Amino acid sequence: MKITAIDLVPVAFRDPPLLNSVGCHEPWALRTVVEVHTDEGISGLGETYGDIGHLNRLRTVAPALVGLDVHDLNGLHARVTTALGGETGSDRHGLTGKLTAESTVDRVFAAFEVACWDIRGKALGRPVVDLLGGAVRSAVPYSAYLFYKWDAHPGAEPDEFGAALDPDGIVAQARLLVERHGFGSIKLKGGVFPPEEEIEAIRALRAAFPDHPLRLDPNAAWTPATALKVASELDGVLEYLEDPSPEIPGMAEVARSSPLPLATNMCVVAFEHIARSVELGAVQVILSDHHYWGGLSRSKELAAICRTFGIGLSMHSNSHLGISLAAMTHLAAATPNLNYACDTHYPWNSADDVLVSPLSFVDGAVPVPSGPGLGVELDRDALARLAENYRKCGLVQRDDTGYMQKHDPSYERKRPRW
Amino acid sequence: MKITAIDLVPVAFRDPPLLNSVGCHEPWALRTVVEVHTDEGISGLGETYGDIGHLNRLRTVAPALVGLDVHDLNGLHARVTTALGGETGSDRHGLTGKLTAESTVDRVFAAFEVACWDIRGKALGRPVVDLLGGAVRSAVPYSAYLFYKWDAHPGAEPDEFGAALDPDGIVAQARLLVERHGFGSIKLKGGVFPPEEEIEAIRALRAAFPDHPLRLDPNAAWTPATALKVASELDGVLEYLEDPSPEIPGMAEVARSSPLPLATNMCVVAFEHIARSVELGAVQVILSDHHYWGGLSRSKELAAICRTFGIGLSMHSNSHLGISLAAMTHLAAATPNLNYACDTHYPWNSADDVLVSPLSFVDGAVPVPSGPGLGVELDRDALARLAENYRKCGLVQRDDTGYMQKHDPSYERKRPRW
Repeated sequence: MKITAIDLVPVAFRDPPLLNSVGCHEPWALRTVVEVHTDEGISGLGETYGDIGHLNRLRTVAPALVGLDVHDLNGLHARVTTALGGETGSDRHGLTGKLTAESTVDRVFAAFEVACWDIRGKALGRPVVDLLGGAVRSAVPYSAYLFYKWDAHPGAEPDEFGAALDPDGIVAQARLLVERHGFGSIKLKGGVFPPEEEIEAIRALRAAFPDHPLRLDPNAAWTPATALKVASELDGVLEYLEDPSPEIPGMAEVARSSPLPLATNMCVVAFEHIARSVELGAVQVILSDHHYWGGLSRSKELAAICRTFGIGLSMHSNSHLGISLAAMTHLAAATPNLNYACDTHYPWNSADDVLVSPLSFVDGAVPVPSGPGLGVELDRDALARLAENYRKCGLVQRDDTGYMQKHDPSYERKRPRW
Repeated sequence: MKITAIDLVPVAFRDPPLLNSVGCHEPWALRTVVEVHTDEGISGLGETYGDIGHLNRLRTVAPALVGLDVHDLNGLHARVTTALGGETGSDRHGLTGKLTAESTVDRVFAAFEVACWDIRGKALGRPVVDLLGGAVRSAVPYSAYLFYKWDAHPGAEPDEFGAALDPDGIVAQARLLVERHGFGSIKLKGGVFPPEEEIEAIRALRAAFPDHPLRLDPNAAWTPATALKVASELDGVLEYLEDPSPEIPGMAEVARSSPLPLATNMCVVAFEHIARSVELGAVQVILSDHHYWGGLSRSKELAAICRTFGIGLSMHSNSHLGISLAAMTHLAAATPNLNYACDTHYPWNSADDVLVSPLSFVDGAVPVPSGPGLGVELDRDALARLAENYRKCGLVQRDDTGYMQKHDPSYERKRPRW
């Protein structure tokens, strides 16, 4: 079953003003919808980043994949490697760590790889989870992903979520998300306010949700000394502390004395980073993400590495639509040692999905789609609307810092900040 | 596609008097042929150890697998784990390292897992290699596996291979195997004679085959001091030195000063051993073996671990028939970082195969079978003959030491011996 053509559709969808350690989400989030067509009339879907550098790499690679069999993942990886010629992408928004030539390949590979699994599942009449080793859970738990946020993008109407700029606002947001979706775990994106304020927000969450596992992610905004102070104050309160400090040596310094396990999706983001991290004991939990760990097959390999080295495994998310959520759910359902609730931005963006039937959370979990392949169907009118958004919105590259500076010229990007 | 029944047929086939560090191969080698049947009329083959303890575990587990979908490898692993109830097997012959409860599960799991891949390939009309990620090579190179040996089992007629008890005999054996099969790499099973004699044999091989990569495997017969002496004498001659000394700390001691990379199929034989070995830098090459690394899927995970930690990957063999050789070939063909010629005992045992069309070597490599599944077909008459051998031969457990002592009562099992 050979690839005959690939459609790459950059899309933009509304995104609330979510704050983080490098600035604020812009009004539009960018993604690329991938559709791979085959000579047997079966097509498969993938979803990946929409930043222009990545989009250009996808466009460079796609023609080189025509003629490839959808089972031949080794061949797919080799063709992507050849087509990219050693180019190294860059994480210009500063939230997902340093790229290497190899991890640039894995990011591009992943977008097509997921579509190949979708095709194979459809051809066989089985959900992707079956091809990945079978479901160890029938629904995948996700966490309520809380953000400090403004009530509105500057100059726009307030959104339905309201402002969250202090502990009360964060607790109210948590109540909204937990009531609406039933989430059983809570993650707060931190690194926005001084650590003392974010500690207070976590304490307020603990008081409001005594039994929900809690996490805090300041995106490397803290020095190791600050991180250790926070870790000691939140000992017994958080299930893990995510990326408190920059880089593997910094995380290792924190880990040596931290009473809390440290998680990362910033300092260990490629297979090349793992050996050094293991050597230094830098992280206790890796937040996997099939979009940059080389798709579903390599994410399973990452899971095997975590199992073998006694490292915990959770799942990271960027702003995404339902194709990605379906892929994440199949992967997580087939991964026995993924023992934490996964992260997802979906509740912030699902109103703009490109699926005929957007996915939903039942008691905080996404039931594994049971249809063939990823089990989702593209709404081509919605896709056209989001593609039109992309053309009109004027954005081609995520830039949280630039957006923040437009509204607060004194804002500086600084890591660590405290 | 659900499992409806499983046949387990213990078989025995003729084995020459091959010598190693714990004794001599008995006249019969034991294996178990596994046949898994499904509700769609498709059956799949596996091949595994025939020792009674393992056979009993297979028999314990098989009924628990009825009703399982052949895609559900996670479910298969869980059912094997439950059925074995924490039992730990033992390597009584002393050649493949210490078992744990988890690695005992992986050994039993592997036998059924291979059969499930065979079934899935047949159902899809594709070779197993395609389901494992696609062939990166169309034929898999194997090494000429040399043994010191007697010309005959005591009391029997000489076999076609003749004696090999000194450098000339080893070179003659190499010529026979290389001429017959075209092998491009050579491995000598050592640990039989004092290291100086085996060094001489390697030097004789180097003189006779100036361009063939060479390996020497004394099965942990040497102290670290002896191992280092051999390594320094054979620096520049061997591509790797295999299991010179016992256990991870012993191998690490050798590795710290050895000019040669060290390989193992004795001290790192389960996922639980890897972290410690990495920490100590004990081995530079792992000899994988799907029979004990949990089948084809987990062997791919092992390959990913080796890739990630910069560890070389080769492939180990025990005495086996063509079902195993087919599985090894599909796996190796789908594993990009398996860069060494694989080991196989097949040339010693192939006259007794259970396949309608036994596999053969072309220029030292096995072409990847192109038929659906493993691409091999069971010869049921041959299977019946080998099953009859098993019933008549009186052996139920490999015992190289006991066999040696029958003919040389002064023989002692000793590790390290030199």
